[in-house]
Amino acid sequence: MSEKELRNEVAALRKAAAVLAATDDKTRQKALFLMAGAILSNRSEIHKANEEDIRRAKEEGISPSLLHRLEFTDEKIDTAVKGLRELAMLPDPVGKTLMRRELDPGFVLEKKTFPIGVIAMIFEARPDALVQMAGLCLRSGNTVVLKGGREAMDTNRLLCSIILEATAEAVGCSWLLGIESREDVNALLSMDGLIDLIIPRGSNSFVRFVMDNTRIPVLGHSDGICSVFIDESADIEKAIRISVDSKCQYPAACNAAETFLVHRNIASRFLPLFADAMRDKGVRLHCTDEVLEYIPDGIRAVDSDFDTEYLSLECAVRIVSSVDEAIEHLAEHSSHHTDAIVTESAENRDKYFKLVDSADVFCNASTRFADGFRFGLGAEVGISTSKIHARGPVGLDGLMTTKWLLSGNGETVAEYSGPDAKVFHHKDLI
Amino acid sequence: MSEKELRNEVAALRKAAAVLAATDDKTRQKALFLMAGAILSNRSEIHKANEEDIRRAKEEGISPSLLHRLEFTDEKIDTAVKGLRELAMLPDPVGKTLMRRELDPGFVLEKKTFPIGVIAMIFEARPDALVQMAGLCLRSGNTVVLKGGREAMDTNRLLCSIILEATAEAVGCSWLLGIESREDVNALLSMDGLIDLIIPRGSNSFVRFVMDNTRIPVLGHSDGICSVFIDESADIEKAIRISVDSKCQYPAACNAAETFLVHRNIASRFLPLFADAMRDKGVRLHCTDEVLEYIPDGIRAVDSDFDTEYLSLECAVRIVSSVDEAIEHLAEHSSHHTDAIVTESAENRDKYFKLVDSADVFCNASTRFADGFRFGLGAEVGISTSKIHARGPVGLDGLMTTKWLLSGNGETVAEYSGPDAKVFHHKDLI
Repeated sequence: MSEKELRNEVAALRKAAAVLAATDDKTRQKALFLMAGAILSNRSEIHKANEEDIRRAKEEGISPSLLHRLEFTDEKIDTAVKGLRELAMLPDPVGKTLMRRELDPGFVLEKKTFPIGVIAMIFEARPDALVQMAGLCLRSGNTVVLKGGREAMDTNRLLCSIILEATAEAVGCSWLLGIESREDVNALLSMDGLIDLIIPRGSNSFVRFVMDNTRIPVLGHSDGICSVFIDESADIEKAIRISVDSKCQYPAACNAAETFLVHRNIASRFLPLFADAMRDKGVRLHCTDEVLEYIPDGIRAVDSDFDTEYLSLECAVRIVSSVDEAIEHLAEHSSHHTDAIVTESAENRDKYFKLVDSADVFCNASTRFADGFRFGLGAEVGISTSKIHARGPVGLDGLMTTKWLLSGNGETVAEYSGPDAKVFHHKDLI
Repeated sequence: MSEKELRNEVAALRKAAAVLAATDDKTRQKALFLMAGAILSNRSEIHKANEEDIRRAKEEGISPSLLHRLEFTDEKIDTAVKGLRELAMLPDPVGKTLMRRELDPGFVLEKKTFPIGVIAMIFEARPDALVQMAGLCLRSGNTVVLKGGREAMDTNRLLCSIILEATAEAVGCSWLLGIESREDVNALLSMDGLIDLIIPRGSNSFVRFVMDNTRIPVLGHSDGICSVFIDESADIEKAIRISVDSKCQYPAACNAAETFLVHRNIASRFLPLFADAMRDKGVRLHCTDEVLEYIPDGIRAVDSDFDTEYLSLECAVRIVSSVDEAIEHLAEHSSHHTDAIVTESAENRDKYFKLVDSADVFCNASTRFADGFRFGLGAEVGISTSKIHARGPVGLDGLMTTKWLLSGNGETVAEYSGPDAKVFHHKDLI
C-alpha cells in the first residue's frame, strides 16, 4: 500500500468513527457476537493460515517462545471467542454520565464518556491479541488500525477479513484496517490529524521508537524495571514467596521484578534464604559488595545493573538503610511501572504508597499482579507508564474520552456578567 | 540563566515534587493562606513593580486591551487573593479514592489520585493569572515552572519571590520557579525527563509551536473555531440572543463563535433578524452566496472564512440543509472546542450531543459558557481540545494522575495460575 493509499484508508476510518460512535449498545454487542461466531465457523481456514505462518517462521528459525505465541491453537481460539462474548456483556462504556450539575435551575451540564475516535494498535505476533484488540475497540466504539507482528501475517490478514465481513453491515461501517509492513507503521506516525491515539506493544526499543517519532499521543510503556523492597519488619516467609513469584513466575513479562532492595536490619536473616530460593530457580544474582558478604557466590554488580530490564532469570540486589533510601533509589532507577514493598509496618506501607511515584505500588503482593485481568478490568489494552490519561493496566476506560454537554433554554453569558449578574447555583445532581 | 543552570533548577523542582506530594491537606491549605496574606501585605511593592512594567509597555506602544490585562489593580489583587482562599477551601484533590476493589478477601486494590509532578505553565502578561496558576499547582501538590508574558516581567518576578518566601518553609521545599526568557521556554521543551506536563496559553501560533516542539504532553488548545447552528425548529428569539452573546459578549475569547450555520427552512425568518442584531453590534458578516440573498450587505465569503478564528467582530455564515450537514461541516471545519445547536427538537439535540466530536457541545446556550468558573470547577487551568487526559475546561482534576495501590498478605500469581488456580472474586467495595 502506498503512503497515499494508506492515508486515504485512514481518512475513511476517521469518517467511519462518526458512524461507529453513533451505534447503540445492542448494535455493538450484536457485532461482537457475530465476530465470535465468524471466528468459530472459520476455524479450519484460520488453522490453515496459521500453519502457513508457522511453517515460514520455522524456516526463519523462530525461537520456541515466539513460536508458542504465534500458534493459534483450538484452545486459544476458544479462549479468544469466550473473551469476545464476555466483552459484549460488560457494561457499555459509551455514554456513561460522569457528572451532572445544574448551573442554574433547568440549565444542566453533563460530562459523559465517548469513544476517542481512531486508534492505532501495534502488537506482537499473537493472533489472539488481534482478536482481543479488535474486540476492545468495537466494544468501546473506536475504529482501529491493527498491526500485528510480521510472523503472524497470514493469520492476521485472514482474521481481519473475517472480522470485518462479519460485523461491517451490523455496525454500518468499515471500522477496522489491518496493515502489515513496517513502512505502513512509519507512515501512520505522521498522521496526527487522522489518528487520535497509538497503543504500541512489543520490544522496548520499538515502543520508544514510536514515542520518539510521532505527535500522536502514545499509550504504553517502554521499560518495565520493577522492584521488590524487603523492609526491616518484613515477614521473611512472605518476602521469599513474593520475591520468587515476582522474579520467576514469568520472567519475560514487563511486570517481573528486576531489582531487589533489602533493608540492612533484615539482610542477614533474609539474604541467605533468598539466595537459596533463587538458586533453586536458576536465577543469577547481581549483588553489591555488601550483599556479596551474605551471598558469596553472587555476581559482583555494576551500576548499570540497577537500570537493566533483564526479562530473564537475572536480577540486581542492593542493601538500603531505610525505607526512605529505597524510595530514593526508585526515584532514580525505577521505570515507574510496578514497585512492591514487603513490610508489616502500616506506616511504611503508607509512606511507600504515597511517595513511590509509579503506576502500581504494591504491599505484600507480587509485582506480577500488575495486569488488567487480575485487576478485574476485563480485557487489557496494555500497561501505561504515562502520568497523563490512563496509568497502569488499561481496560476499556482508557479507550474513552469525555464531552461536556450543556442543555439550556437560551441562556447568555451577558446575563451572568456585570453589576446585576445572575449567580450560578452549581448544584450537583449526581 | 544558562540552559545548564535551568536544567539544574528544574531537576531540583523534580526532587521538590516528592516533598510537596507528601504534604497533607492542612499544610497546603495553610500555605495558600500564607500566600494570600503575603500578597496583601506587599501590595504597595507589587504596585511599584507593576507601574514599572506599565511604563515600559507604554513606551513600547502596547495596545489598550493588553494594557488592561497587564494592570494589577487593587481590585484584581483582592480578587486574586479571594481566589486563593477559595482554592484552599476546595476539597483536597490529592489522595481521592476513585475505586476500591477486593481481588480476593483481604487483598485490596485501590485507585487513588496523586499530583502529576512537575508542571510548566506558560501564559499571557497577566499578573493575576500567575497568582491563580501558582495557587492551582500548590493546591494540587504539583511543583511548577511559571512563565508569564514578558510585558509583566517585573511584577511576575516580584510575585514569584513573594509567593516562594511565604510558602517554602510551610511546605518544606522550593516548589516554584519563575522563568522570563523565550530561550528558557525553548530549553524547557527538551526536558522530557524532568517535566511531566506543559500547559501553554496565549496566541494560537505559540501554542502550536509548543505542541510541535516537545515530547512532553501538552494540555491546551491552539484554535478556538466555535460555532452556533440554528436548526429549523429553533426558537427565533433564543437563536438571536444566543448568537449575539456567542459572538459579541467577548469576541477576543477562544469560546466566542466564529461560524454560524443556519438550517435552510428557517433561513428566511432568521437571517434578516440576525443581520439586524449583528449590524447593531458592528459585526462584519462573511456570507455564502445563498446567505447573501437574505443579507445583501454582507461580505461574500471565501472558503477559508470557515477555517478562520477571527477573535474580533467578524464571523462566517452558511446555510445547511439538515442537522447532518451541520455535523459534517463541523467534522471538517470545527477546532473541536465548543459547538452549539439552537433547537426545540430533543431528537436533534441528542444527535448533536452524540455526533459532534468536540470538547463542549451545547444546546440552547451561548458558546461563551465554555469556562471552568461557569462550569463550577473552581479556578481554571485552561481549556483542552485534546481527547486524551482532560478535555474542555480543566480544573484541579486535570492536574492529577492516579496510582494503583494493592495491599495483600503475601499473595503470588503462581497461586492464581495453572490447573488448581485460585479464582479472583473481584468485589467492588466502593
